This record gives sequence, C-alpha cells and structure tokens, in this order.
Amino acid sequence: MANIPISDSEAQQDTGSEQLEKIALNEARSPSSNVWVFDENDPLVLECGASLAPIKVAYETYGTLNSDKSNAILICHALTGDQYVASENPVTGKPGWWTTMVGSGKPVDTDRFFVICSNVLGGCLGTTGPVSINPETGTAFATSLPVITIRDMVAAQAKLITALGIDKLFSIVGGSMGGMQVLQWAASYPDRVHSVVMIASGARHTSQNIAFHEVGRQAVMADPQWHGGNYLEQNVAPRKGLAVARMAAHITYMSGESLQSKFGRNLQDRDKVTFGFEADFQIESYLRHQGMTFVERFDANSYLYVTRAMDYFDLAEDYNGKLANAFMGTKTRFCLISFTTDWLFPTDESRSIVHALNAARASVSFVEIASDRGHDAFLLEEPDMFATIRGFLKSAERTLVRTDTSK
Amino acid sequence: MANIPISDSEAQQDTGSEQLEKIALNEARSPSSNVWVFDENDPLVLECGASLAPIKVAYETYGTLNSDKSNAILICHALTGDQYVASENPVTGKPGWWTTMVGSGKPVDTDRFFVICSNVLGGCLGTTGPVSINPETGTAFATSLPVITIRDMVAAQAKLITALGIDKLFSIVGGSMGGMQVLQWAASYPDRVHSVVMIASGARHTSQNIAFHEVGRQAVMADPQWHGGNYLEQNVAPRKGLAVARMAAHITYMSGESLQSKFGRNLQDRDKVTFGFEADFQIESYLRHQGMTFVERFDANSYLYVTRAMDYFDLAEDYNGKLANAFMGTKTRFCLISFTTDWLFPTDESRSIVHALNAARASVSFVEIASDRGHDAFLLEEPDMFATIRGFLKSAERTLVRTDTSK
Repeated sequence: MANIPISDSEAQQDTGSEQLEKIALNEARSPSSNVWVFDENDPLVLECGASLAPIKVAYETYGTLNSDKSNAILICHALTGDQYVASENPVTGKPGWWTTMVGSGKPVDTDRFFVICSNVLGGCLGTTGPVSINPETGTAFATSLPVITIRDMVAAQAKLITALGIDKLFSIVGGSMGGMQVLQWAASYPDRVHSVVMIASGARHTSQNIAFHEVGRQAVMADPQWHGGNYLEQNVAPRKGLAVARMAAHITYMSGESLQSKFGRNLQDRDKVTFGFEADFQIESYLRHQGMTFVERFDANSYLYVTRAMDYFDLAEDYNGKLANAFMGTKTRFCLISFTTDWLFPTDESRSIVHALNAARASVSFVEIASDRGHDAFLLEEPDMFATIRGFLKSAERTLVRTDTSK
Repeated sequence: MANIPISDSEAQQDTGSEQLEKIALNEARSPSSNVWVFDENDPLVLECGASLAPIKVAYETYGTLNSDKSNAILICHALTGDQYVASENPVTGKPGWWTTMVGSGKPVDTDRFFVICSNVLGGCLGTTGPVSINPETGTAFATSLPVITIRDMVAAQAKLITALGIDKLFSIVGGSMGGMQVLQWAASYPDRVHSVVMIASGARHTSQNIAFHEVGRQAVMADPQWHGGNYLEQNVAPRKGLAVARMAAHITYMSGESLQSKFGRNLQDRDKVTFGFEADFQIESYLRHQGMTFVERFDANSYLYVTRAMDYFDLAEDYNGKLANAFMGTKTRFCLISFTTDWLFPTDESRSIVHALNAARASVSFVEIASDRGHDAFLLEEPDMFATIRGFLKSAERTLVRTDTSK
C-alpha cells in the first residue's frame, strides 16, 4: 500500500489519487500508529469552552525511555505534518518528514533520546479531528467539531505525555506551527519542560499570515464539492479548492530566491511557450503537482481547522498583551532559530520573543541562519541548524546533570 | 449609474453586484470612452502569429495636444487598471485610478501635457478582449481569443498613437504591468519615445510572480461556473474563483509591514474571536471585500489573459538573452523608481535594468524610495515619487528644447 507510485499521467493519477485518498481516510480513523484513547470521562476542555470526549491521540515513538524518564523529547509537527517524523508515512509511503533531524546519530539522536511525536488535535492522521466519527451522530464531525487552538493541541499532547508516565520532557522541538506549540508548552507547563527549540516560528500569527490562510480557506469553501463541510457523506471532496489553497501556501514556504534559482523562467517539457494556459513554466507544473498530491493525503476540513488554530495564536494575548509575562520565572532553557529568507516568519518575530525572554530573565540562545530556502529551510538539510540544535541539547543535558548532582 | 453605492449588507450587495456586472459588460462592449476602431484590413499581427482584426482600442485623453505635437504623454495602466486614469470610472463610479499623478498641477500636468491612456488589449473596458464579440461567430471570443503579450499591448497602443497623428511621445509613464509596457515601448519604438518612467516593475516576470498568477488562474478555472471559459453564454460568471484569485493577488500588492500596521490582528466588529470560520479579523473582512468588489468590475477571462501577458514578459529573451541589447544606441531618457518594501517587484529587478541601460550607454535616473506600503505604493500618495517624476519630466523637457534649438 505504501508503495503506490504517483504516476505522471493524469488519467492514472486520478485512479492512484482515489486509492490514496481512501488510505488517508482509513488512517484518519484507524491509524497504523500508536493511539492513546482517553476515557469518555476524561474530556478535554477546549479554549472555546466546549468539552471534547472521548479523544484519541495518535503518536509514534523512537528510541528508549531511560529509567528516570529524563530523556524524552517531544517533536511538534507543522501545519500539515504528522506523527511520522522519522518513519514511513502509511499514506504516501514516503520516509518520515524530518529524518534529517531525528534518528540514530542525528541532532535529535534516537540512540540517546526517547522521541515522541503525535498528530495534532484537529489533524487527519489518527488524532481526533473533523474526519473522526462523532459518537453522538455516527457520522464525521466535519465542521461541527469545535474550533481547536494551539493551546488545545498542546493540552492534548500534555495528556498523552502524562499517560506515557513522563513528568518532565527533556526537550520539545518544533518548526512553524510546531514552534507555536513549543512556545505554548513553555508558557502553559513550565515545570514540565527542561528545554525547548523553536524554529522558523513566532509568538503570534501576523496579519499577512492570516491573510494567506484566509485565501486558502476561501478557496476550499468556494468549491461546491465542499458541501458546507459535509463532503464525506457524499463521497466527494473539494479537491480543486484544496489544491488551490495548497498552491498559494506553498509559495509562502519558499523564498523568491529559491524559486528563481530552482525554477526561474524555465519551461516545462517544451522549447517555447504555447500561448495558452497550460503549465508552460516549470514553476506552474511544480505548483499544480504540489496541489494535486496534497489533496490525496490531507483532509479539507482539517485544513480549515489547523490554519484557524495558527491564525488564533497570539501568546501575549493570554498574558495581558505582554509576552514576557508568559515566561516570567521560567527555568526552561530556550533555543530560537530563524532563517534569513523566511518571509512567512521573519527573524523579527523571533527577535521579539528573545526580547520577551530576556525581560523574563529566561535562558535563551538565538541564531539567525543564512539560507536562501525561505520558510521550508527548517525541513531541509541545513548544517548550521543541525549544529545549533546538537550543541543546545548537549548543553541542556549538562545542566540537567548538574541539577541532579546538586540534589 | 456611476453612483450605485456598494452596500455593506450581503443581500443588497448581490443585487448591486449584478447591476454593476451588467454595466461592466456593457462598458466592455460599448465603452463610454473614446474608441479607435481599426479597419478590418488593418490587422494586428500578434506575437503568437495570429492576426486580429478589426481591433478596437478604448482610450481617454486629458489636456491639449500642442501645435508641434511634442507634449503627449502616454500612461500605461497596470494589470486590472483601465483608461480612466484621471476621470470617473463608469463602472465603479470611482475617481480615476491615478488622480494623484495625473491632472491639473499634478506631476503629469494636464495643463501642460496632452495625456493619453488606453485600455490594454485583452482587457475588459472597451479595447478588444475576451469579452468582445467575435465577428465570425457572433458570440464572445472568450478563450478563443489568441493569447496577448505585453508586446502586443504596446503594438496596439502604437497604432493608436499613430492614428492620433503623434509621431513621437514626450513620455510614457507606467507602474507594474504598465512599467513592462514602458520598457517594451522603449525597446520596440526607440525613435518614438523621448523619455520613459518605469515604476515598481521589471524587465521580466520572476518565478514567484508567475507562481502567484498561476494560483489565481487555477482558482478561476477551478470554479465550475467558469464553464471552460464560456460562462457569458450561460449568463453566469466564476465569481468565487475570481474573488479568491484577487484575494491572493491583493496580499502581494501590500507589504507585511503595511498589513500589520493597517490591520494587525484587529477583530472586525467583535470583541473576541468566534471560534469559527467567519471573518473574525479585519484583514479577512478586507480581503473578502476586495475579492467581491473586484468581481463586479472585472472579467474572469480577461484576468487570465492579462496575467498571462505578464508571465510571458521577459524582454531580454527577445534580444539574445541580453537586456542591454534591447536598448543599445537608444536616445530615450529613462527614469526608474522602486520601493523598499515592494516584494513583488523588488529593487533588484530595477537595478538589473539600470545595469543594462548603463551597458547600453543610455541616460538613466534611478531612485529607490523608502515606503512601507509595498507594491501598491506607486498608486498612493508618495511625495518622493511625485517629486522625482516632476523633476525628471522637467529635465526631459529641457533636453527636448535643446534638441529643437540645435536644428
């Protein structure tokens, strides 16, 4: 199943797509990964006020938890990521999304750390989300699922960490939406986090960030196949709308420089333009492909929910508008990383968090890494990022040992 | 007609929208402005090889042509602009789109200059475009219209200028897509242009530029109401798709800074978020409004054509890949203006044109203006831009006088 190739011919692709979509739906409801099912009497009270129960949290682990349970690292995934951080994704058959970062001998070294990664609440790969069956109705929640926030996602993760018998995480690492979860963890559960690494992220979604997400949601909701969110009942999906949403988003993940050096104005399989609306340019073909393959693996309603969670994120707001208040008195050690050409989460967003952490007298390391690859750099081969995280985790381990010694 | 207000209530807006769309369609076919109808035996041979005849060019003029016809300035409009540069638009009832630049006592002073502005080929306000009736079929061209390029737009303008009895333009001024036309004019008709002003533009569309346009086109074509381009026959329009396209494009016209300072994370008519998918944030409400009002005044197929024209633009390509060759030996005086926060046409694009002009030993002034308003700055109140253009035109007038004296 995992090896279904994505064919180049459109006709074949349609058949392949449908099969992949079926696998995706199946994984959303009966995931191949571990799933922690919380009791019906153990609801999650969401930020919007609603109670959600029973909730399921799908997760993967790598490495071994040591005897004093002090080597656990939680990885928080980005918008459309999943729990398969370092193992094959059962829908796409592709390797884990962060195998450069997590694995044996990697910066987050599974030979030494016990690594946990869970699918976010509102997601579509096994954790409770819009695709999940609402036990009260017997049909998918769809848009009747209460809106989820980053704090809700983190609360679900905290329940999982508790269920796994871990009091305190050695570290939490995440980029983009994962970085928001990292900050929320540090703010909500300072005593449960020894250190955190936030990459290419921010303490709030900016106006431009919200704008791009709103375009994506409007593209999904404009598709008549969305059916007010109830497309699953009708065995259809707003594929075209979701593909357009992904195309728009994908541009924001890359820098202008990287698009220019990767694709430029190169033509796709032709010597000259067709004077028409075909994908004459490689960049057009590339974006269309990104849109089409995304639809195969991701649920449209989930896309609405996770984008909304990011839009609603403004950590300072919960602390009287002062971000420093979120971290006052914290003992957690922070590492922040940004990239020079990331225009979605520019360095200034990281810098303002550093200022807040300084005001809160927290321990913080901050590195801006020169890269021409834009926001996506955090998912790519970036030696300076790997070196920074290796060094930070090593130093965080030393302080952990010192604390133990002083007992 | 021109005073139909755009209502805030959605129900009323629907009625208003339909009326405006009808006016727009009428203006596309029977414009209120001047129209030059070229003879059927005077075709325009397009870059794609097709011949188009008869063609119509709709235009407005302001001021008076002097006796030696040496005071004519052509204004080239941007993507969705029109000929109403300094007079009321008959569809929207709004003032001309560049009244800060063009008018009595303005930088392009209609007391001294004879100003011409024509709707571009492929547009939808009176010049031949996809909405025009194909005389061979009696129905709208729709997507059977050959694809138009910037060079074709300029060729149509050149025919108009000739028809108006003007050999040589004193200047041509344009921003964004208008700036591309300015460069093409200078390259194609160097002896017919004394001076040119290119603002917030480039000599090619970059990969990122093409990417955003492709998203917009896919949004339009994904709308089932597009009907393969033949929506006019069915009395419908791909309104939702075109609105999404406009929303995405609109984000690229503003800088992150301006979005943040104008809208930030402010909520729209509410004290707290609704935990839903309403337009909670001002930026969402603003973008939705931009999308809805755009649909009332602009044709979806025209949008495909004009975006494609920009994508295809790469002036160097016609000159063996060397931009300097486009301007070799030119006597035209160039003024280039860019804005610090314009990320759609960043300053580097202007700078590479300056280098080419230097290599061609052309006369060139170049100014990068500090503005936080992104690409849209060229349409806004930017005193440094006005001062630059005033100064440039004054100096260009002096050289014109000197040339005359030397006869």
